[in-house]
Amino acid sequence: MTIPEQRLRAFTYEIFKAIGCPDTDAELATDVLVSADLRGIDSHGVARLSGYVRLWENGRLNAQPRIRVVHETPTTATVDGDGGLGLVVAPYAMDIAIEKAQQYGSGWVAIRNSNHFGIAGYHALKAVEQEMIGYALTNASPLVAPTFSSERLLGTNPICYAFPAGQYPPVVVDMATSAAANGKLEIAERTGKPIPQGWALDTAGNSTTDASAVKKGGALLPLGSDRDHGSHKGFGLSATVDILSGVLSGANYGPWVPPFVAYLQPVADQPGQGIGHFVGALRVDGFRPVADFKTNMDQWIARFKQAKRVNEAQGVVIPGEPEYEATQHRKQHGIPLVNAVWQDLNGLATKFGIIPLTTTH
Amino acid sequence: MTIPEQRLRAFTYEIFKAIGCPDTDAELATDVLVSADLRGIDSHGVARLSGYVRLWENGRLNAQPRIRVVHETPTTATVDGDGGLGLVVAPYAMDIAIEKAQQYGSGWVAIRNSNHFGIAGYHALKAVEQEMIGYALTNASPLVAPTFSSERLLGTNPICYAFPAGQYPPVVVDMATSAAANGKLEIAERTGKPIPQGWALDTAGNSTTDASAVKKGGALLPLGSDRDHGSHKGFGLSATVDILSGVLSGANYGPWVPPFVAYLQPVADQPGQGIGHFVGALRVDGFRPVADFKTNMDQWIARFKQAKRVNEAQGVVIPGEPEYEATQHRKQHGIPLVNAVWQDLNGLATKFGIIPLTTTH
Repeated sequence: MTIPEQRLRAFTYEIFKAIGCPDTDAELATDVLVSADLRGIDSHGVARLSGYVRLWENGRLNAQPRIRVVHETPTTATVDGDGGLGLVVAPYAMDIAIEKAQQYGSGWVAIRNSNHFGIAGYHALKAVEQEMIGYALTNASPLVAPTFSSERLLGTNPICYAFPAGQYPPVVVDMATSAAANGKLEIAERTGKPIPQGWALDTAGNSTTDASAVKKGGALLPLGSDRDHGSHKGFGLSATVDILSGVLSGANYGPWVPPFVAYLQPVADQPGQGIGHFVGALRVDGFRPVADFKTNMDQWIARFKQAKRVNEAQGVVIPGEPEYEATQHRKQHGIPLVNAVWQDLNGLATKFGIIPLTTTH
Repeated sequence: MTIPEQRLRAFTYEIFKAIGCPDTDAELATDVLVSADLRGIDSHGVARLSGYVRLWENGRLNAQPRIRVVHETPTTATVDGDGGLGLVVAPYAMDIAIEKAQQYGSGWVAIRNSNHFGIAGYHALKAVEQEMIGYALTNASPLVAPTFSSERLLGTNPICYAFPAGQYPPVVVDMATSAAANGKLEIAERTGKPIPQGWALDTAGNSTTDASAVKKGGALLPLGSDRDHGSHKGFGLSATVDILSGVLSGANYGPWVPPFVAYLQPVADQPGQGIGHFVGALRVDGFRPVADFKTNMDQWIARFKQAKRVNEAQGVVIPGEPEYEATQHRKQHGIPLVNAVWQDLNGLATKFGIIPLTTTH
């Protein structure tokens, strides 16, 4: 079924209100989640709503956090999210980064004691709206093994850079630092298909084509897949995300990052608080006039779009362009929900006494 | 043959003096190159000295540049390298970034009109000496094809992040954003071996095991190798490096980045000046006390070092540790040079009337 954007926003807002979020927080969290659906990143949109609710039910999510700055210089800060929704904490932190950038050219905020922040691209794009380059990272609970190990020690730890352009949409590089997302394994498992070599290890540390490998206790592989193809680089990037998000902020890191899923308990003896993020904003006109930058960005984009194709049917994809196009389409035609997500959301509606989503809007 | 560090420094210094570099520039350029050799990154050390000399002979390198800041805010700047050695221009820019960070918490400098800057790690580590996180990027002449294309549009565009630690050496993630370095293909070619699938494309855009593929007009592949294994992520990272280094600074970018090798001419109608870099420094105590950060860094490192091994003989490699160990060893036992590099350096000695390197020091 397909739901109009505004209907899905209203529904999501009501759920966040039902768990006790203040109005503005519920609106903001809704905007982050629905933006993921608009951008076609369905795995990080309303499909996760019931996951946040379960965390709240288990007392691991504070719906009314007192988010605060605990350390600061003119262009840096550490924010304590007080166990709140990352969907609310990360935009709060990005606003600080943008304010600092407006005043001093750049702003950088590390965040501890937070939860899952949705898509990194949402946060980085807030900077782009102000003619800045946006940067957003988060660590996540461990699923990925470093090169030469079979142990899950890192999350899929995404990195996002977003750049304003002129006549083209912003360039948004928003990527997990693993070879493949766990969601891709779940899709293969549901359809009974094997996965390619280079995505996952079994528990013995062997590369496998078993789509259930991670569920059975194996691990995802870093970007690069194996040492010969540069998996130490994917590991290095994931480590960078973990250090900036977790170690620099005073959050948890590595194997201590608490799980998003409520049925798994955080491990004991955590060195930090909650999960960590890191966001930044860099004023374009801190380096050159915005118009000059955009002229060159447009030339960059145009040149890559006309790159010689290996296969005539498929040109080079400019990072962020498919998500921009999905947004244009879904704003007009609505957001498609798979049946499992639709049922999941209406389970929440029943739980909280809210009008369910129907095929007639 | 193995050359003591001090002898190799004295020799390298004389060559830079011979092409007209001022004393302090010759010392600095020497330090950058010899540091690469000390760290075991032989491809970026004195093996490149004759390459810089040839660029100078062809009038494409200014040995006495007037390096200057052309645009500035409290925490950002753009530096024009005046066609000088990247080995001199990048440290100049990093000093500015560090000064800004000392005053405001962070500093970010884009550099245009420069040349090859050696190893990114050298520049990032300058920040680590000041208890800061260091960041260094550079674009490079095109050898890498974006996903779905067979055209060389990006350099191997390295990214480096360097983090201070406590009892352990700094964590230094210093990586090309291609699946494999071109040097690895050259080694395979010399030894007559095929390369793994996933490193390169032939001119028709097919994956190949031919070690000469790039020499014959093919292209390197981005980190991730193919779309299924995340090559769009390697492309996105390489694009990020190109935009921050080239577009943001006003340098060249994409296919217009001028080649390091003097026998290839820069393409016509360049949109910018020279090659571009981007460096940054972020004060650790802008986020939390340095001692707390280092305690957690040490725990992070210790935990990853004791990760469960796939193969008992090989543990997880902490990024930067092998280079740190190589430096300790080579400072004591000297720097090994392969015969081709030794002959190349002594060719320079003959050219400039300098005492050659010999086996007796």
